[in-house]
Order: sequence, then C-alpha cells, then structure tokens
Amino acid sequence: MSNTKHTAKRAAKPQKVPEQSTSCPTKKAHHPERLKSEMIKRLHRIEGQVRGLSKMVEEDVYCDDILHQIMAVDSALGGVKKTLLKAHVEGCVVEQLRSGDAKVIDELMATMTKMMK
Amino acid sequence: MSNTKHTAKRAAKPQKVPEQSTSCPTKKAHHPERLKSEMIKRLHRIEGQVRGLSKMVEEDVYCDDILHQIMAVDSALGGVKKTLLKAHVEGCVVEQLRSGDAKVIDELMATMTKMMK
Amino acid sequence: MSNTKHTAKRAAKPQKVPEQSTSCPTKKAHHPERLKSEMIKRLHRIEGQVRGLSKMVEEDVYCDDILHQIMAVDSALGGVKKTLLKAHVEGCVVEQLRSGDAKVIDELMATMTKMMK
Amino acid sequence: MSNTKHTAKRAAKPQKVPEQSTSCPTKKAHHPERLKSEMIKRLHRIEGQVRGLSKMVEEDVYCDDILHQIMAVDSALGGVKKTLLKAHVEGCVVEQLRSGDAKVIDELMATMTKMMK
Repeated sequence: MSNTKHTAKRAAKPQKVPEQSTSCPTKKAHHPERLKSEMIKRLHRIEGQVRGLSKMVEEDVYCDDILHQIMAVDSALGGVKKTLLKAHVEGCVVEQLRSGDAKVIDELMATMTKMMK
Repeated sequence: MSNTKHTAKRAAKPQKVPEQSTSCPTKKAHHPERLKSEMIKRLHRIEGQVRGLSKMVEEDVYCDDILHQIMAVDSALGGVKKTLLKAHVEGCVVEQLRSGDAKVIDELMATMTKMMK
Repeated sequence: MSNTKHTAKRAAKPQKVPEQSTSCPTKKAHHPERLKSEMIKRLHRIEGQVRGLSKMVEEDVYCDDILHQIMAVDSALGGVKKTLLKAHVEGCVVEQLRSGDAKVIDELMATMTKMMK
Repeated sequence: MSNTKHTAKRAAKPQKVPEQSTSCPTKKAHHPERLKSEMIKRLHRIEGQVRGLSKMVEEDVYCDDILHQIMAVDSALGGVKKTLLKAHVEGCVVEQLRSGDAKVIDELMATMTKMMK
C-alpha cells in the first residue's frame, strides 16, 4: 500500500538529521497535535464514507445518488487537502525559505501545478 | 451515514413498482455483476488508501508526500465516478429516454453541472 | 486558428446532407436564436476580459490581482460551457437517441470524461 | 472592464511607497520582459480563440466540436495561470517573506484555495 511505501521511505532517513527531529529539513511534518487529530478525524470519516459507497454499489442504489455521494467524498477530501496545504505552506515552506533553502519553492510549485490540473 | 440514508430512501420505494424490479423507473441500478464487482474492488482499494492517509498524518510523514498521496486518491475516486457516470448514461438514461421519460435529462444535467464545478 | 479549422471542416460537409440542414444528423447545431445570441454576447464579454488580462500584464498589475481576474474568466467560460452542454444534451443528444443513433452517447461520454479531468 | 478597475485601484496606491517602484511592497508586478511578452503573446492567442468561439456559435458549428474548443481555451488559460502563479511565488512571495512580511502567505493561500475549487 502506498502509505507503507511512504512510511518506509521516511523511516529510513532519520539518521541523516539526528538532533533536530522536529524541524523541516528532516522532511518530517510537525503539525500541532490539535491539527493532526482534526485531520485524522476527518480522514476516518471519509474512510467510512468510501465504505458506504461500496455498500451503495452492492445494494444497487440508483447511480445518480451514488454520484452525488462520490462528490460529497471528493469535497471532504478536498477540504483535508486544503487544510494540509495551508499548514505545509505556513509551516515547512516558510521555515525552509527562512533557513535559506529555496528548493522548497520548486517542490511547492510542482505540487500546486499538479493540483490545478 | 449517508449510504444508510440512501439505502433507506430506496428501500422504502419498491412497492410503487412491484413487477419489474430491474428496470430504471424503479430508480434502482442494475449494472452487470462484472461492473459491480470491479467498482466495489476499486472502492475497497480507495478505502485502504484513505486509511493509509490517516496513518501518514499520524506518523508525521512530510506534507508534500501526503498531498501527492491525496491526489492519487482523488484520481482513483475520479476513475470510479467516470465509470459509474458512463454506466448510468448508457444504461438508465438511455432506457428512461426510450420509455419517454425526459425528466432524467434534467437530473443528469444537474449532476453533470455539479461535477464540472 | 482553431475556429477556422472547425469552420472549414464543417463548411466542407453540407453537400452530404442537402435537405434537412437543421437536424442533428447533419452535425450542425440548431439552437434557438435567443440562446445563440446570449452565448455570443457572453463570449464577446469574455473576449474583452482576456484583452483586459493582456493589459494588466502589460501594466505590471500585481500578480495576485491578475490571478483572481483569470479565475473570473475561467468561471465565465465555464458558464458558457455548461449552457452549451445543456443545450447539446437536451437537443442533439436526445434527438439522435430518438432517431436510433446510439453513437452520440459514446461521443458525449468522451467529451464529459475530458471535461471532468 | 475589470482591468480598468484593477489598474485604477493600483494607480491610487503608489504614494505609500514612493521610492522603490519595482519592489513587491508596492504591489506592482515586476516580471522580466521576456516573461511579460510571452504571457501577452499567449493571452492574445487566447483572445483570438475566444473570438473564434463566437464565430463557431454564430455559424451553428456542431456543439460537441465547440465544447472541445472551449476546453482548448480552458487549457491555454490554465497554462497562463500556472506560469503567472509560479512567477508570483518565486518573485513577490519569496521577496515579501524575506523582507519579513508574512501576510503574503495568507493572500497566497486564499488565492490557491480558490483555484483548487
């Protein structure tokens, strides 16, 4: 699964930056706990909505109703995406820029360009 | 949960159209089994991806990586949406139009307009 | 220019369907005059907005303001797209389906899938 | 027209930052000439494409062809939007952040959130 891949990739890196495990150059996020738990809560709700979609297909619910429910999931996921992007820009991006690392801008632009497709 | 609502709404209707439970006027979907199981399989995979997202947030995976993974989920969900829309138009919409019910066009246009936002 | 290409392509076809120049199988649109003139009016306004964008760039208007103005143009163009799609589905698509031509559904699905990207 | 409005709004501000008319705090863009002329060229082409759309509607070109041409315009305008956003972030945003003005991040997030809708 993709998260395993990401986790593994990240898990292999810490030795490169041993001391300051909460700063951005380690490429680890460090959001306030409140934000993290809010995002996790929203993702759990979305997970339940996706499970609901499977059930709707299983039970032959009318397609137009399922399409509307898929749009609701899209929208909920879009909300998480915006929240995370905001936290990323306000946190990591600003921080890396201040520490003189301008590469983060290329990374951000690549991500935003992909998002605007 | 939304699917319960939908299921309940639909479950209450069958008595209106007792005989032909597989035709569109009952507002029940009737996709071929192969399509249904393919969509359910894809939705289960998406459910796992969303669960993976929670774990990524939990484990402080770097935001930019999570953003890319959210886009992967968006895209997978978009694929299901297109497949379902296609099945809906080719099945229910064409069928209802042939049986003289033009209201399905208003319904379709409302859904498509919402999708294009 | 792209419109020339389209016009040319269409201009070359009329001889194939000489009699019924206002029906869909000729692949000519035949919207009511009111709808046509409304769409043309909106497109002229959009043309002016795009001309305005060039001027904004020329005069070094602050980028964020130009970005918002581009979004306004996007939205105006999106309005024309929805209006046209609605007219197309309610007119040509329904008509071709009634005359037994189901190929229009493939064409519509290809267009809608591209729109949903 | 909107660009007049924007120009006017900006034109009224210069007295606040009299000396350094090419830096970001004046809220004037200052893109390299090459980028400006490239964007203006692309906007002129888009203006011609929109004019072409009016002609297509006027000449009853088949709707599906017009819809595809509208998508081509969408895509061309999207290209200008991405180019401008990139120039904005790499130029003004980075510059304002370095000069200690963090408000530009709120402005950027508001714009990006609107773009992602």
